Amino acid sequence: MTSTPLETDEPEFVADYLLYLLAAASEGASAQFHATVRSHDLRVPEWRVLACLHDRDGAMITHLARLALVEQSRLTRIIAHMETRGVLRRQNDPDDGRRVRVFLTPEGQNLVDLLVPLARAHEKRLLAQLSNTDATNLKPMLKALLKTLEDPVAPTGKTSNTD
Amino acid sequence: MTSTPLETDEPEFVADYLLYLLAAASEGASAQFHATVRSHDLRVPEWRVLACLHDRDGAMITHLARLALVEQSRLTRIIAHMETRGVLRRQNDPDDGRRVRVFLTPEGQNLVDLLVPLARAHEKRLLAQLSNTDATNLKPMLKALLKTLEDPVAPTGKTSNTD
Repeated sequence: MTSTPLETDEPEFVADYLLYLLAAASEGASAQFHATVRSHDLRVPEWRVLACLHDRDGAMITHLARLALVEQSRLTRIIAHMETRGVLRRQNDPDDGRRVRVFLTPEGQNLVDLLVPLARAHEKRLLAQLSNTDATNLKPMLKALLKTLEDPVAPTGKTSNTD
Repeated sequence: MTSTPLETDEPEFVADYLLYLLAAASEGASAQFHATVRSHDLRVPEWRVLACLHDRDGAMITHLARLALVEQSRLTRIIAHMETRGVLRRQNDPDDGRRVRVFLTPEGQNLVDLLVPLARAHEKRLLAQLSNTDATNLKPMLKALLKTLEDPVAPTGKTSNTD
Protein backbone atom coordinates (compact mmCIF):
# COMPACT_ATOMS: atom_id res chain seq x y z
CA MET A 1 0.00 0.00 0.00
CA THR A 2 1.33 3.42 -0.89
CA SER A 3 1.72 5.97 1.86
CA THR A 4 2.51 9.18 0.00
CA PRO A 5 0.15 11.36 -2.00
CA LEU A 6 -0.18 10.40 -5.60
CA GLU A 7 -1.03 12.45 -8.62
CA THR A 8 -3.11 10.17 -10.79
CA ASP A 9 -2.43 9.67 -14.48
CA GLU A 10 -5.84 10.98 -15.50
CA PRO A 11 -6.32 14.70 -16.14
CA GLU A 12 -7.48 16.70 -13.13
CA PHE A 13 -11.22 16.53 -12.70
CA VAL A 14 -12.53 18.77 -9.90
CA ALA A 15 -10.83 22.04 -10.84
CA ASP A 16 -12.37 21.92 -14.32
CA TYR A 17 -15.76 20.44 -13.39
CA LEU A 18 -18.71 22.72 -14.11
CA LEU A 19 -20.69 21.68 -11.03
CA TYR A 20 -17.69 22.32 -8.79
CA LEU A 21 -17.05 25.71 -10.42
CA LEU A 22 -20.69 26.72 -9.97
CA ALA A 23 -20.84 25.55 -6.35
CA ALA A 24 -17.52 27.14 -5.40
CA ALA A 25 -18.34 30.44 -7.13
CA SER A 26 -21.77 30.54 -5.53
CA GLU A 27 -20.41 29.71 -2.12
CA GLY A 28 -17.53 32.16 -2.36
CA ALA A 29 -19.60 35.06 -3.64
CA SER A 30 -22.41 34.43 -1.19
CA ALA A 31 -20.08 34.07 1.79
CA GLN A 32 -19.03 37.68 1.33
CA PHE A 33 -22.53 39.12 1.36
CA HIS A 34 -23.93 36.68 3.88
CA ALA A 35 -21.62 38.15 6.47
CA THR A 36 -23.59 41.38 5.96
CA VAL A 37 -26.87 39.47 6.21
CA ARG A 38 -25.88 37.85 9.48
CA SER A 39 -24.72 41.17 10.90
CA HIS A 40 -28.38 42.21 10.65
CA ASP A 41 -29.36 39.19 12.70
CA LEU A 42 -30.86 37.39 9.71
CA ARG A 43 -30.23 33.90 8.46
CA VAL A 44 -29.57 33.46 4.75
CA PRO A 45 -32.97 31.96 3.83
CA GLU A 46 -34.64 34.83 5.74
CA TRP A 47 -32.74 37.35 3.65
CA ARG A 48 -33.79 35.48 0.52
CA VAL A 49 -37.44 35.64 1.54
CA LEU A 50 -37.17 39.38 2.17
CA ALA A 51 -35.50 39.88 -1.22
CA CYS A 52 -38.32 37.96 -2.92
CA LEU A 53 -40.94 40.05 -1.13
CA HIS A 54 -39.11 43.16 -2.35
CA ASP A 55 -40.05 42.05 -5.85
CA ARG A 56 -43.49 40.70 -5.08
CA ASP A 57 -45.02 41.67 -1.77
CA GLY A 58 -47.89 39.29 -1.06
CA ALA A 59 -46.23 36.32 -2.79
CA MET A 60 -47.38 32.80 -2.02
CA ILE A 61 -45.17 30.36 -0.12
CA THR A 62 -44.72 28.11 -3.19
CA HIS A 63 -43.30 31.08 -5.11
CA LEU A 64 -41.04 32.10 -2.22
CA ALA A 65 -39.76 28.55 -1.78
CA ARG A 66 -38.76 28.34 -5.42
CA LEU A 67 -36.84 31.62 -5.39
CA ALA A 68 -35.36 31.20 -1.92
CA LEU A 69 -34.04 27.75 -2.93
CA VAL A 70 -35.56 26.19 0.18
CA GLU A 71 -37.97 23.28 0.50
CA GLN A 72 -41.50 24.38 1.18
CA SER A 73 -41.79 22.61 4.53
CA ARG A 74 -38.64 24.30 5.77
CA LEU A 75 -39.74 27.64 4.37
CA THR A 76 -43.02 27.43 6.26
CA ARG A 77 -41.06 27.20 9.53
CA ILE A 78 -38.76 30.05 8.48
CA ILE A 79 -41.73 32.25 7.68
CA ALA A 80 -43.41 31.46 11.00
CA HIS A 81 -40.20 32.53 12.73
CA MET A 82 -40.03 35.75 10.72
CA GLU A 83 -43.65 36.50 11.53
CA THR A 84 -42.87 36.13 15.24
CA ARG A 85 -40.00 38.52 14.77
CA GLY A 86 -42.39 41.00 13.17
CA VAL A 87 -40.82 41.42 9.75
CA LEU A 88 -43.65 39.81 7.77
CA ARG A 89 -47.23 38.67 8.16
CA ARG A 90 -49.24 35.89 6.58
CA GLN A 91 -52.73 36.53 5.28
CA ASN A 92 -55.27 34.31 3.57
CA ASP A 93 -56.00 35.29 0.00
CA PRO A 94 -59.42 36.99 -0.05
CA ASP A 95 -60.24 35.24 -3.35
CA ASP A 96 -59.13 31.79 -2.22
CA GLY A 97 -58.97 31.27 1.54
CA ARG A 98 -56.79 28.15 1.19
CA ARG A 99 -54.01 30.24 -0.27
CA VAL A 100 -51.68 32.07 2.09
CA ARG A 101 -49.91 35.20 0.98
CA VAL A 102 -46.90 36.74 2.71
CA PHE A 103 -46.51 40.50 3.18
CA LEU A 104 -43.71 42.65 4.55
CA THR A 105 -44.46 44.58 7.72
CA PRO A 106 -43.06 48.13 7.97
CA GLU A 107 -40.14 46.67 9.91
CA GLY A 108 -39.56 44.11 7.17
CA GLN A 109 -39.75 46.86 4.56
CA ASN A 110 -37.08 48.79 6.47
CA LEU A 111 -34.79 45.76 6.39
CA VAL A 112 -35.38 45.32 2.66
CA ASP A 113 -34.72 49.01 2.02
CA LEU A 114 -31.43 48.62 3.85
CA LEU A 115 -30.24 45.28 2.47
CA VAL A 116 -31.21 45.33 -1.20
CA PRO A 117 -29.03 48.38 -1.94
CA LEU A 118 -26.18 46.75 0.00
CA ALA A 119 -26.61 43.58 -2.08
CA ARG A 120 -26.60 45.58 -5.29
CA ALA A 121 -23.46 47.44 -4.24
CA HIS A 122 -21.72 44.16 -3.37
CA GLU A 123 -22.70 42.69 -6.73
CA LYS A 124 -21.35 45.77 -8.47
CA ARG A 125 -18.00 45.43 -6.69
CA LEU A 126 -17.80 41.75 -7.58
CA LEU A 127 -18.49 42.39 -11.26
CA ALA A 128 -16.04 45.29 -11.29
CA GLN A 129 -13.26 42.85 -10.41
CA LEU A 130 -13.87 40.87 -13.61
CA SER A 131 -12.79 41.85 -17.09
CA ASN A 132 -15.33 44.01 -18.92
CA THR A 133 -16.31 41.11 -21.17
CA ASP A 134 -16.85 38.75 -18.26
CA ALA A 135 -18.72 41.37 -16.27
CA THR A 136 -21.06 41.92 -19.21
CA ASN A 137 -21.61 38.27 -20.05
CA LEU A 138 -21.66 36.44 -16.73
CA LYS A 139 -25.27 37.08 -15.74
CA PRO A 140 -26.74 36.48 -19.23
CA MET A 141 -24.76 33.24 -19.41
CA LEU A 142 -26.05 32.05 -16.03
CA LYS A 143 -29.59 32.93 -17.11
CA ALA A 144 -29.12 30.83 -20.24
CA LEU A 145 -27.91 27.93 -18.12
CA LEU A 146 -30.86 28.32 -15.75
CA LYS A 147 -33.21 28.24 -18.69
CA THR A 148 -31.82 24.92 -19.89
CA LEU A 149 -32.06 23.56 -16.35
CA GLU A 150 -35.79 24.16 -16.32
CA ASP A 151 -36.06 21.31 -18.82
CA PRO A 152 -34.86 17.87 -17.84
CA VAL A 153 -31.52 16.99 -19.43
CA ALA A 154 -32.00 14.79 -22.47
CA PRO A 155 -30.67 11.32 -21.70
CA THR A 156 -28.09 11.45 -24.49
CA GLY A 157 -26.43 13.72 -26.96
CA LYS A 158 -26.75 17.31 -28.00
CA THR A 159 -29.94 19.26 -28.54
CA SER A 160 -30.50 21.19 -31.74
CA ASN A 161 -29.54 24.40 -29.93
CA THR A 162 -26.79 26.18 -31.87
CA ASP A 163 -25.21 29.58 -31.75
CA MET B 1 -53.37 47.14 5.04
CA THR B 2 -53.36 45.74 1.55
CA SER B 3 -54.37 42.16 1.02
CA THR B 4 -53.47 41.49 -2.60
CA PRO B 5 -50.01 40.94 -4.03
CA LEU B 6 -48.23 44.09 -5.06
CA GLU B 7 -45.60 44.61 -7.69
CA THR B 8 -43.30 47.23 -6.25
CA ASP B 9 -42.22 50.29 -8.19
CA GLU B 10 -38.55 49.33 -8.04
CA PRO B 11 -37.04 47.16 -10.76
CA GLU B 12 -37.05 43.43 -10.05
CA PHE B 13 -34.11 42.41 -7.92
CA VAL B 14 -33.85 38.64 -7.39
CA ALA B 15 -34.15 37.44 -11.01
CA ASP B 16 -31.21 39.64 -12.03
CA TYR B 17 -29.07 39.24 -8.89
CA LEU B 18 -25.73 37.55 -9.46
CA LEU B 19 -25.74 35.66 -6.16
CA TYR B 20 -29.22 34.31 -6.86
CA LEU B 21 -28.25 33.29 -10.41
CA LEU B 22 -25.15 31.50 -9.15
CA ALA B 23 -27.00 29.72 -6.35
CA ALA B 24 -29.93 28.71 -8.55
CA ALA B 25 -27.69 27.52 -11.39
CA SER B 26 -25.50 25.57 -8.99
CA GLU B 27 -28.47 24.03 -7.24
CA GLY B 28 -30.28 23.16 -10.47
CA ALA B 29 -27.24 21.67 -12.20
CA SER B 30 -26.16 19.76 -9.12
CA ALA B 31 -29.64 18.39 -8.43
CA GLN B 32 -29.52 16.50 -11.70
CA PHE B 33 -26.24 14.76 -11.03
CA HIS B 34 -26.78 14.33 -7.32
CA ALA B 35 -29.66 12.00 -8.08
CA THR B 36 -27.03 9.75 -9.68
CA VAL B 37 -24.77 10.15 -6.64
CA ARG B 38 -27.52 9.15 -4.25
CA SER B 39 -28.45 6.17 -6.40
CA HIS B 40 -24.99 4.84 -5.50
CA ASP B 41 -25.79 5.23 -1.83
CA LEU B 42 -23.48 8.22 -1.44
CA ARG B 43 -24.21 11.60 0.06
CA VAL B 44 -23.10 14.66 -1.90
CA PRO B 45 -20.10 15.58 0.28
CA GLU B 46 -18.94 11.95 0.09
CA TRP B 47 -19.01 12.11 -3.70
CA ARG B 48 -17.04 15.35 -3.55
CA VAL B 49 -14.39 13.73 -1.37
CA LEU B 50 -14.09 10.82 -3.79
CA ALA B 51 -13.78 13.23 -6.73
CA CYS B 52 -11.00 15.13 -4.92
CA LEU B 53 -9.16 11.87 -4.19
CA HIS B 54 -9.44 11.01 -7.90
CA ASP B 55 -7.22 14.03 -8.52
CA ARG B 56 -4.96 13.66 -5.51
CA ASP B 57 -5.01 10.34 -3.72
CA GLY B 58 -3.44 10.85 -0.31
CA ALA B 59 -4.69 14.42 0.06
CA MET B 60 -4.86 16.02 3.50
CA ILE B 61 -8.17 16.80 5.15
CA THR B 62 -7.63 20.57 4.90
CA HIS B 63 -7.26 20.23 1.12
CA LEU B 64 -10.32 17.99 0.85
CA ALA B 65 -12.41 20.36 2.96
CA ARG B 66 -11.58 23.28 0.70
CA LEU B 67 -12.49 21.45 -2.50
CA ALA B 68 -15.50 19.60 -1.07
CA LEU B 69 -16.90 22.93 0.19
CA VAL B 70 -17.43 21.48 3.65
CA GLU B 71 -16.18 22.71 7.02
CA GLN B 72 -13.25 20.70 8.28
CA SER B 73 -14.99 19.49 11.44
CA ARG B 74 -17.89 18.16 9.40
CA LEU B 75 -15.55 16.64 6.85
CA THR B 76 -13.69 14.75 9.56
CA ARG B 77 -16.97 13.02 10.50
CA ILE B 78 -17.80 12.33 6.85
CA ILE B 79 -14.38 10.77 6.30
CA ALA B 80 -14.72 8.61 9.40
CA HIS B 81 -18.04 7.35 8.04
CA MET B 82 -16.52 6.64 4.63
CA GLU B 83 -13.64 4.78 6.26
CA THR B 84 -16.15 2.58 8.12
CA ARG B 85 -17.85 1.91 4.79
CA GLY B 86 -14.51 0.86 3.36
CA VAL B 87 -14.11 3.32 0.51
CA LEU B 88 -11.13 5.19 1.94
CA ARG B 89 -8.52 4.89 4.67
CA ARG B 90 -6.67 7.44 6.74
CA GLN B 91 -2.95 7.18 7.28
CA ASN B 92 -0.46 9.33 9.14
CA ASP B 93 2.08 11.03 6.93
CA PRO B 94 5.41 9.20 7.35
CA ASP B 95 7.27 12.54 7.23
CA ASP B 96 5.02 14.31 9.74
CA GLY B 97 2.98 12.03 11.97
CA ARG B 98 0.60 14.83 12.96
CA ARG B 99 -0.63 15.08 9.38
CA VAL B 100 -3.30 12.67 8.25
CA ARG B 101 -3.61 11.74 4.60
CA VAL B 102 -6.64 10.12 3.00
CA PHE B 103 -6.36 7.35 0.42
CA LEU B 104 -8.90 5.53 -1.71
CA THR B 105 -9.36 1.83 -1.05
CA PRO B 106 -9.87 -0.45 -4.07
CA GLU B 107 -13.62 -0.19 -3.41
CA GLY B 108 -13.38 3.59 -3.35
CA GLN B 109 -11.38 3.53 -6.55
CA ASN B 110 -14.12 1.46 -8.18
CA LEU B 111 -16.71 4.07 -7.17
CA VAL B 112 -14.53 6.85 -8.56
CA ASP B 113 -13.98 4.95 -11.80
CA LEU B 114 -17.73 4.63 -12.13
CA LEU B 115 -18.83 8.12 -11.08
CA VAL B 116 -16.24 10.47 -12.60
CA PRO B 117 -17.08 9.38 -16.18
CA LEU B 118 -20.80 9.75 -15.36
CA ALA B 119 -20.14 13.26 -14.02
CA ARG B 120 -18.18 14.17 -17.13
CA ALA B 121 -20.96 12.85 -19.37
CA HIS B 122 -23.57 14.85 -17.44
CA GLU B 123 -21.46 17.99 -17.72
CA LYS B 124 -21.11 17.42 -21.44
CA ARG B 125 -24.88 17.12 -21.86
CA LEU B 126 -25.45 20.32 -19.84
CA LEU B 127 -22.95 22.30 -21.91
CA ALA B 128 -24.40 20.89 -25.13
CA GLN B 129 -27.71 22.54 -24.27
CA LEU B 130 -26.10 25.98 -24.29
CA SER B 131 -25.15 28.00 -27.33
CA ASN B 132 -21.65 27.26 -28.59
CA THR B 133 -20.38 30.59 -27.29
CA ASP B 134 -21.81 30.03 -23.82
CA ALA B 135 -20.60 26.44 -23.74
CA THR B 136 -17.08 27.64 -24.56
CA ASN B 137 -17.02 30.58 -22.17
CA LEU B 138 -18.96 29.46 -19.11
CA LYS B 139 -16.22 27.55 -17.32
CA PRO B 140 -13.43 30.09 -18.03
CA MET B 141 -15.75 32.84 -16.79
CA LEU B 142 -16.53 30.98 -13.56
CA LYS B 143 -12.81 30.37 -13.05
CA ALA B 144 -12.18 34.10 -13.46
CA LEU B 145 -14.86 34.83 -10.87
CA LEU B 146 -13.39 32.25 -8.49
CA LYS B 147 -9.99 33.86 -8.88
CA THR B 148 -11.33 37.26 -7.84
CA LEU B 149 -13.11 35.64 -4.90
CA GLU B 150 -9.82 34.39 -3.53
CA ASP B 151 -9.03 38.02 -2.71
CA PRO B 152 -11.28 39.93 -0.35
CA VAL B 153 -13.59 42.36 -2.16
CA ALA B 154 -12.21 45.87 -2.05
CA PRO B 155 -14.46 48.00 0.17
CA THR B 156 -15.24 50.46 -2.62
CA GLY B 157 -14.96 50.99 -6.31
CA LYS B 158 -13.44 49.18 -9.22
CA THR B 159 -10.04 47.56 -9.37
CA SER B 160 -7.65 48.40 -12.13
CA ASN B 161 -8.57 45.16 -13.89
CA THR B 162 -9.61 45.92 -17.47
CA ASP B 163 -10.28 43.86 -20.54
